[in-house]
Amino acid sequence: MKLASLKEGRDGRLVVVSRDMKKAVPAGDIAPTLQAALDDWDHCRPLLDATYHALNVGSGRDVFDFDPAACAAPLPRAYQWADGSAYVNHVELVRKARGAELPESFWTDPLMYQGGSDSFLGPREDIRAISEDHGIDFEAEIAVITGDVPMGVPVAEAGGHVRLLMLVNDVSLRGLIPAELAKGFGFFHGKPSSAFSPVAVTPDELGGAWDGAKLHRPLLSFLNDAPFGKPEAGEEMTFSFPQLIAHAAATRPLSAGTIVGSGTVSNRDADGSPGKPVAEGGLGYSCIAEIRMIETIASGKPSTPFMRFGDRIRIDMEDGDGASIFGAIDQTVVRYGG
Amino acid sequence: MKLASLKEGRDGRLVVVSRDMKKAVPAGDIAPTLQAALDDWDHCRPLLDATYHALNVGSGRDVFDFDPAACAAPLPRAYQWADGSAYVNHVELVRKARGAELPESFWTDPLMYQGGSDSFLGPREDIRAISEDHGIDFEAEIAVITGDVPMGVPVAEAGGHVRLLMLVNDVSLRGLIPAELAKGFGFFHGKPSSAFSPVAVTPDELGGAWDGAKLHRPLLSFLNDAPFGKPEAGEEMTFSFPQLIAHAAATRPLSAGTIVGSGTVSNRDADGSPGKPVAEGGLGYSCIAEIRMIETIASGKPSTPFMRFGDRIRIDMEDGDGASIFGAIDQTVVRYGG
Repeated sequence: MKLASLKEGRDGRLVVVSRDMKKAVPAGDIAPTLQAALDDWDHCRPLLDATYHALNVGSGRDVFDFDPAACAAPLPRAYQWADGSAYVNHVELVRKARGAELPESFWTDPLMYQGGSDSFLGPREDIRAISEDHGIDFEAEIAVITGDVPMGVPVAEAGGHVRLLMLVNDVSLRGLIPAELAKGFGFFHGKPSSAFSPVAVTPDELGGAWDGAKLHRPLLSFLNDAPFGKPEAGEEMTFSFPQLIAHAAATRPLSAGTIVGSGTVSNRDADGSPGKPVAEGGLGYSCIAEIRMIETIASGKPSTPFMRFGDRIRIDMEDGDGASIFGAIDQTVVRYGG
Repeated sequence: MKLASLKEGRDGRLVVVSRDMKKAVPAGDIAPTLQAALDDWDHCRPLLDATYHALNVGSGRDVFDFDPAACAAPLPRAYQWADGSAYVNHVELVRKARGAELPESFWTDPLMYQGGSDSFLGPREDIRAISEDHGIDFEAEIAVITGDVPMGVPVAEAGGHVRLLMLVNDVSLRGLIPAELAKGFGFFHGKPSSAFSPVAVTPDELGGAWDGAKLHRPLLSFLNDAPFGKPEAGEEMTFSFPQLIAHAAATRPLSAGTIVGSGTVSNRDADGSPGKPVAEGGLGYSCIAEIRMIETIASGKPSTPFMRFGDRIRIDMEDGDGASIFGAIDQTVVRYGG
């Protein structure tokens, strides 16, 4: 099943989207918003499923053409955004670039930060930034939306709480992060509003690509239309989604609608190198910071600039037939006017 | 005006509470929940005000006895909980106990962490903890709820976005914090669900105690009924609420219903000492960690234990006539059964 939230009010208006993402149908008679559906999922899910199946065979009332540009984030605001950093290759690269060792515990204890969740961006909304000097970067990630998760949930049970999956652009202001993290309280200014794919999909929709713990498809990033990254999201994910959920719920329950992110998807290349550019036959990168780290390791300093006003980032994931699964995130960086 | 959310569903049911907190009246005809009222504040505020004034003169339909134990947190779940650490005396003490210097920038650049906001506790709900070894502590704080705040708001305009004030118990698991902060991504396990006072009040309700930036009343903490702290919340608050709001909104907008916390309220004592126990004539502490730091500085190790199962913490604030302004937070620590 595919669900989206059309821009309307603060929480959007829930619609069911056809598998090919060409058509959609209102779901307001089932739940006004995606959060409302998640709050009462056992009741709403079969009704939404029935609507979805009808839509896919060309049936349904008030069917209209689906337009990703009319979408807010599936959850335009959420009660929790907990972003992991599950691809330790990414973490190791970041540290290597600044000459820091990776603590051994990072392979067994997930990194996760609490993100702001009150003002998410729709898939086609501009990234508004105050200054290019802030080091504007994208981070292409996968995220799951959970149901209610009890405190202390074991990993073996955590996967059963996954309700939906989405793509994320975890926008990052690299220039602000080192000083912020040095203060010891985590991210705040360095992580402005994240953007999400037009559509959120149920795990069953993904077929064999979702094994209950990881999503086995390449995550595609295009910077100003040039291929920038295509790492396989199911590979080298040190911590699975059930592990990330269990980590988030270790000392408190998670409420329905909690979004748990994978962190920047990152693979080593087949030759064991820490990631070659797509143009050189590599899998590329899911953020600019990584290629800058590779450049710094190779030549002492980065050569690829962070994003400038007018730059575009597109993030997508295709099924085995080349069709977009979630619809694309496609954003332009613009100067914030105040 | 005083507002509360009775326990009902996920978001509680909005009620207006009389100034003396003896009576309450349903507000469902104005807004079903406090979040709904905040989402449409300009419309709802005058209607809620009228209800409040009628209630205070003994008028109103369906008036009932107000029971703080029937309350959820004013916002049982919120879209954002951004907790500052505005009392630098507290920060300096924490650092001194472990022999670390306070960076000079901490006096000019606020510390703030992004907290989990999906599962708050009501004022009389138990603190459920897995183990006493986690170092269970309370933190008595003030918090404001904001309306919509534009990104980059100047400090001079930030105060105008304060809608309501509350008390907070920012429950902390001290034993988990050092290792968690050492990972560099801020708090997660160390900050389980926070609890809030029964009632949230509008700034005008506070009269002269609210100067538009700080709340000038002592914050009272009682550990197992013994006075533990009574620092003056308006003193030694290095960063005012407008400064904290502007800090939170530096790179992204804040949505209506954002909660911004003061951090643990902390004063030096009149003699310049970093805080004496109430029993010794001092102003005491708003968390156990502080007295342990004082003990560590004085004698090399702490002697006051963190909270144990069965321990109670009460947090309150009184007006000039000795009447509770927000109602008391009164919680017991219990073992989490899984």
